[in-house]
Amino acid sequence: MASTAKVRPVSHASPSIGDLAARYRDVRGLTERLRGPLSAEDCQVQSMDDASPTKWHLAHTSWFFETFVLAPANPDYRPFHPDFAVLFNSYYQQVGPQHPRPRRGMLTRPTLDDVEAYRAHVDRHVLELLGRANGRSEPLSAIIELGLHHEQQHQELILTDAKHLLAANPLRPTYRATAAGAPHAKTVALRWLAHAGGVSEIGHKGRGFAFDNESPRHRTLLTPFALATRLVTNGEYLAFIEDAGYRNPALWLSDGWSTLHALDWQAPLYWERRDGAWFEFTLAGLQPLALDAPVCHVSFYEADAYATWTGARLPTEAEWEVSAAGARIEGNLLDSDRLHPVAARDGAGLQQLFGDVWEWTRSAYAPYPGYRAPNGALGEYNGKFMCNQQVLRGGSCATPASHIRATYRNFFPPNARWQFSGIRLAKDA
Amino acid sequence: MASTAKVRPVSHASPSIGDLAARYRDVRGLTERLRGPLSAEDCQVQSMDDASPTKWHLAHTSWFFETFVLAPANPDYRPFHPDFAVLFNSYYQQVGPQHPRPRRGMLTRPTLDDVEAYRAHVDRHVLELLGRANGRSEPLSAIIELGLHHEQQHQELILTDAKHLLAANPLRPTYRATAAGAPHAKTVALRWLAHAGGVSEIGHKGRGFAFDNESPRHRTLLTPFALATRLVTNGEYLAFIEDAGYRNPALWLSDGWSTLHALDWQAPLYWERRDGAWFEFTLAGLQPLALDAPVCHVSFYEADAYATWTGARLPTEAEWEVSAAGARIEGNLLDSDRLHPVAARDGAGLQQLFGDVWEWTRSAYAPYPGYRAPNGALGEYNGKFMCNQQVLRGGSCATPASHIRATYRNFFPPNARWQFSGIRLAKDA
Amino acid sequence: MASTAKVRPVSHASPSIGDLAARYRDVRGLTERLRGPLSAEDCQVQSMDDASPTKWHLAHTSWFFETFVLAPANPDYRPFHPDFAVLFNSYYQQVGPQHPRPRRGMLTRPTLDDVEAYRAHVDRHVLELLGRANGRSEPLSAIIELGLHHEQQHQELILTDAKHLLAANPLRPTYRATAAGAPHAKTVALRWLAHAGGVSEIGHKGRGFAFDNESPRHRTLLTPFALATRLVTNGEYLAFIEDAGYRNPALWLSDGWSTLHALDWQAPLYWERRDGAWFEFTLAGLQPLALDAPVCHVSFYEADAYATWTGARLPTEAEWEVSAAGARIEGNLLDSDRLHPVAARDGAGLQQLFGDVWEWTRSAYAPYPGYRAPNGALGEYNGKFMCNQQVLRGGSCATPASHIRATYRNFFPPNARWQFSGIRLAKDA
Amino acid sequence: MASTAKVRPVSHASPSIGDLAARYRDVRGLTERLRGPLSAEDCQVQSMDDASPTKWHLAHTSWFFETFVLAPANPDYRPFHPDFAVLFNSYYQQVGPQHPRPRRGMLTRPTLDDVEAYRAHVDRHVLELLGRANGRSEPLSAIIELGLHHEQQHQELILTDAKHLLAANPLRPTYRATAAGAPHAKTVALRWLAHAGGVSEIGHKGRGFAFDNESPRHRTLLTPFALATRLVTNGEYLAFIEDAGYRNPALWLSDGWSTLHALDWQAPLYWERRDGAWFEFTLAGLQPLALDAPVCHVSFYEADAYATWTGARLPTEAEWEVSAAGARIEGNLLDSDRLHPVAARDGAGLQQLFGDVWEWTRSAYAPYPGYRAPNGALGEYNGKFMCNQQVLRGGSCATPASHIRATYRNFFPPNARWQFSGIRLAKDA
Repeated sequence: MASTAKVRPVSHASPSIGDLAARYRDVRGLTERLRGPLSAEDCQVQSMDDASPTKWHLAHTSWFFETFVLAPANPDYRPFHPDFAVLFNSYYQQVGPQHPRPRRGMLTRPTLDDVEAYRAHVDRHVLELLGRANGRSEPLSAIIELGLHHEQQHQELILTDAKHLLAANPLRPTYRATAAGAPHAKTVALRWLAHAGGVSEIGHKGRGFAFDNESPRHRTLLTPFALATRLVTNGEYLAFIEDAGYRNPALWLSDGWSTLHALDWQAPLYWERRDGAWFEFTLAGLQPLALDAPVCHVSFYEADAYATWTGARLPTEAEWEVSAAGARIEGNLLDSDRLHPVAARDGAGLQQLFGDVWEWTRSAYAPYPGYRAPNGALGEYNGKFMCNQQVLRGGSCATPASHIRATYRNFFPPNARWQFSGIRLAKDA
Repeated sequence: MASTAKVRPVSHASPSIGDLAARYRDVRGLTERLRGPLSAEDCQVQSMDDASPTKWHLAHTSWFFETFVLAPANPDYRPFHPDFAVLFNSYYQQVGPQHPRPRRGMLTRPTLDDVEAYRAHVDRHVLELLGRANGRSEPLSAIIELGLHHEQQHQELILTDAKHLLAANPLRPTYRATAAGAPHAKTVALRWLAHAGGVSEIGHKGRGFAFDNESPRHRTLLTPFALATRLVTNGEYLAFIEDAGYRNPALWLSDGWSTLHALDWQAPLYWERRDGAWFEFTLAGLQPLALDAPVCHVSFYEADAYATWTGARLPTEAEWEVSAAGARIEGNLLDSDRLHPVAARDGAGLQQLFGDVWEWTRSAYAPYPGYRAPNGALGEYNGKFMCNQQVLRGGSCATPASHIRATYRNFFPPNARWQFSGIRLAKDA
Repeated sequence: MASTAKVRPVSHASPSIGDLAARYRDVRGLTERLRGPLSAEDCQVQSMDDASPTKWHLAHTSWFFETFVLAPANPDYRPFHPDFAVLFNSYYQQVGPQHPRPRRGMLTRPTLDDVEAYRAHVDRHVLELLGRANGRSEPLSAIIELGLHHEQQHQELILTDAKHLLAANPLRPTYRATAAGAPHAKTVALRWLAHAGGVSEIGHKGRGFAFDNESPRHRTLLTPFALATRLVTNGEYLAFIEDAGYRNPALWLSDGWSTLHALDWQAPLYWERRDGAWFEFTLAGLQPLALDAPVCHVSFYEADAYATWTGARLPTEAEWEVSAAGARIEGNLLDSDRLHPVAARDGAGLQQLFGDVWEWTRSAYAPYPGYRAPNGALGEYNGKFMCNQQVLRGGSCATPASHIRATYRNFFPPNARWQFSGIRLAKDA
Repeated sequence: MASTAKVRPVSHASPSIGDLAARYRDVRGLTERLRGPLSAEDCQVQSMDDASPTKWHLAHTSWFFETFVLAPANPDYRPFHPDFAVLFNSYYQQVGPQHPRPRRGMLTRPTLDDVEAYRAHVDRHVLELLGRANGRSEPLSAIIELGLHHEQQHQELILTDAKHLLAANPLRPTYRATAAGAPHAKTVALRWLAHAGGVSEIGHKGRGFAFDNESPRHRTLLTPFALATRLVTNGEYLAFIEDAGYRNPALWLSDGWSTLHALDWQAPLYWERRDGAWFEFTLAGLQPLALDAPVCHVSFYEADAYATWTGARLPTEAEWEVSAAGARIEGNLLDSDRLHPVAARDGAGLQQLFGDVWEWTRSAYAPYPGYRAPNGALGEYNGKFMCNQQVLRGGSCATPASHIRATYRNFFPPNARWQFSGIRLAKDA
């Protein structure tokens, strides 16, 4: 996602209304808990154009329910505040004008308290609506389900944007004191799992929720390949740095080499060298670099250069999805509450497919064959990001487990580094 | 001042220590009261590079006392926090490194509560020090006096920076609900007060406090001139706009014309046209434009273009000071608590000399003959701004009365508009 | 190509050395003839960072032969000038440092006369080498063949860069007086040619020359689709403009919409409206817009928005190549000497496949399955552009006929407009 | 002058028409001779926004005579080319629109040959006009005199702009092979010449030509001061560099320190260190740094920092003019044909007042008391540059001797370095 959520359901389960209300309370409540460690000031500041203030995330997700659930359901519904439609619309041009994205941090009013009241107001009305619906309303539950997945995307952004803000402070403050957990004793060996290629199907099928960009399910033709059984570690990436990886143009895409120089990249985002030792800034503050943990906060350019250095390459998104198709959705996701990637365990098959870090693919984000963006404001916007972005797969330590799946297509510009993004290698077999 | 305070006393009274403690409490207390209407979020945000967060002003003024009073007075003094020396140093390079100015708004930690505790800590130690000094310490009282004038400069900046922040919010929130007061019935006629010229003295003399840039007092040679008896009004400036003043290059300095186009200026800062009527944003929110009130928030370029349009010119700083030399320091200053310029009253002599708006002069900010910047960190920095800035005189509705005097030289770049800055005309006689 | 040529042969014919010498003379001579209408001053100036001076093109193509043919063939070869290796290296980092691209226009020395002498020197040595080789040298002929294709790419750039330069002159000077030819009486109807999809092969095969990015030939799986039988015309594109196409965000990719606003696009590059009538700047000067001629000088963003407006889409590069696989290489190419796209003629099958304008595809430029960039400086650089670019197919009115083929993959960033780039529609069948 | 000439005569001699025609031929001919060493390509390129192509200088100076002499003198006069009024107007807004300054280098048409024809055309008509005038036309001779001084300003710019262009070429080509002359054996001692201060007059008087900014002549009040008897040398400036002058913020104006960092200044413009030895680029190519020659191509910021480092200061323009009032206009001016500053000779009084380098003063460029910009296009523009610039005095090795005088006020922004600008120290006496 291009730093804010792009959403459109193409299919969904029909949970009972009671289940949906419980899920609504769960998701909305988790957002509040994620906000908990942050002061009113932390929630206010926008540390770069790509990030948003936590307060804005809190309000925007509520605006989403107000605009797409409450207003359509009740012609007499009066918005909580008439100006919020402009302040908290992200990019839905068919809904109306938007406060400029880089100036979200200027909005000291409404205050955090005001926004909390806004959330409570929206919650009350949504839950009332669900109570009245009494199980009859299929479109209603679909759009609420969508709103919840949308909010889960913003939960991840709350964490990554807060991390970026805190890292901008020379005090290197913590979001939460608990560290990610003790490092493992040694790094699991990297092995290759081969795939024979041929025609496979990818894309969403079945009745669960998915975004429109995961459809249509379609056949794709793969040449034989192999995937690395685990993610690239900090230790492996450090060897690339120490081998002058950031100074060797032969390893880099042309745009990557320019970006590296323009932004003076010398290591992943949040790495710091102090007195000869490497540290990384985490949500638990500055920590010694854990060599066996997955490398994180690298751009697509860095991921690609690293892969080139090893003689391998990044996987395509189809290779990834075909390989992940049967896997259980488990791993170091947000639910594990570690908030940082951890070292792989030994085991058969592909490890760390879900959670830890989003895995850059070599696939440019593009429409699937036969894809058509849906009509209306909600459907307006997945397709419009299908240029200049790369697909990432698998979710991260900041992704809710109920939000991720094998067909999920995340996407960011190739220079983005503030998400929990890392590297899995692939090679031709 | 170049958007933060540049200070160095060259002389001062010797008030009794008891008086100084009382004055210390007064000044520090006023800062707190000015902060009162602002939320933690309002105090956090930096709306442009030239402005600073209120929280930063609160901390920086305390850092000043800690660095230049408490630390020298007691070798065992331990700073409140070891990192504040970097975070809250503005530009004193001899003291040490500084957090980059445009990133002051990133510092969500320390929180506002932390900074209030810092202020209380500093206050306690300064007052203890004054208690111990018991009237004997001339250098101590001099540097505390300096710190208080420094803090008064930041009081004005708290108001102008907060105004800039609130104006960036489409909700156009208010700092304080009270309006500036009822407009007068009609505009007082503009008359000219002639001066015969000749050799006069300007610059600071006597025992009261003054900044180093007001010295040495020296003789200057003036040709005959006349000053307008009051400030230019909004109504008069509106006539300039309606006469296509912003579209006529013949009226503008070359740099002004470029700036006007680059920033798309069409009226003073904070003016807005809604449904054909002019409004201006004030600390009391958006208000209909008061035609008889002084025009405000204009740059030097606009002031100069307006003067050219009338066939007059701006005064030199020497003309202004010679004319103001005998005047009482009274007017619409911060003490009147209006927080906005108001219309001139009728009366003999020059009106509105002090308060309402800082008056742009045609004098570039330069050292007086014989000026030498003092040694050491405190003296390091008045001289270093003596390039590319214009002198302003007289104080504004945000300037404490005890802070201003006829010899006071304020200075800002010619494109600055967010201060309460306006226009008094002059002409050759 | 990213505004300069990226080259690497993967296979080639083995022409007799005599043929190759003749072809060498032909290609080099054409470069000179294309330069002919340009003054020394025209050849000097770089009108934007993406363009290069003609003089630079003349020298760089000679440097290519000197570096990759003459120097390896003869250890005693002394470069024409020791500094030219830096001045005229484009981006071959393994060869050595490069004069900064945006400053190519600063190089008033060597003069055009010096560069012509350089060309003559290189020609003499290459032809001598060919004379001595006497048909025995397979690697030699391969690299010379490569150098000639490289030079042909620069022939097209000489024309597009000169056009950009001349268009920047308010006098709107001409490159050559001859107009493109009389417009047709009426526009040929746009029809659709369906393709059944399924598995096909794409990529280079056989013994003729191709660049490395056209390999490996591989199977691809297509869903049924249809291609428009001709290019989109100026008249059709004008209807899009008149339907507020440039003001409707729903039609645009997000990055396209931002670019449109940042650069204030309102029509294709080189279109001008004068007194209510549309003109376009051509190499023959400003001409009335020919409504039945193909629209030209549009970006990928514009091509995509136009396609969305029609309800169709752009083709993928595989769809294009499969459709063009059997077609004869003929059309309005450089050899027709029109230097401007012309209206389609009626006829069976796909018209205008080759020549007129490069056709934007919806395919991001990416490596073919199994692609590996070759070793060494020459092979260093095709792969490195495989990010943030879109593939274009088919050649233009500035492409030599002997340079284009169905498997040829050109590529430019999605915002590029100064090439002869246009639109062919596709749709799902 | 702000990189192009700002001109308005306030008084002038009345030479006989015959003298004026001879002088016209001389000045115009010198321009051609200065152009001589430059190729058509050298004359075409604009190496930065502040510089102009030589071809543009050649045309603009002719446009000046066409617009302000030929057109007013003859209602039937037809311009040489109708578009030149836009192409070659510098900034006279009352004359009409202007081709954007930073795009002057795009104008490859008209060619250099065309511009030479333009010059010949203008010369023929001006000389015919002078022939017909037969001594009767006072306004005519005044405006032609003005045009000649204007052209002389551009003669200096041709040299400084060409130097900047040639320096941008890694070949470091020469304008002319002749070096500036053998260095002296040793540096003349720097002495101080005291002045008692008091009331003096400055500004233009008498019947000779002067620009409007030199008037009115007026009294000024000076405190006692002393001037250095010669310019600061390269050797002295090198000691400042070696004493970490560029790394010590205490020496620099605040804007200077920012500029130094933004532009990474480490030495004067055109200085280069190769293998531990210092060289400077001159119009005769790269030369070993002559330690006893005046330091050159320094900004006001560097001049001011150097003066601070020595404990002295820069002179005011009044101090300079009063000191130079009686001096003969002789020195290393353009007429000496050295094109580079040379070491001072020993002698009584102030050396190097005229020629060698323009001397930065600490005076901001401002109107003299009573100054009014004249009406009309010609008078429009001296005043409009009176902001953000510093005055320089005395002329340089690129200034014609007949162009300079003690009252002459040159002006450039404080960061400008590409003029022949240097340093004379002053101090309070």
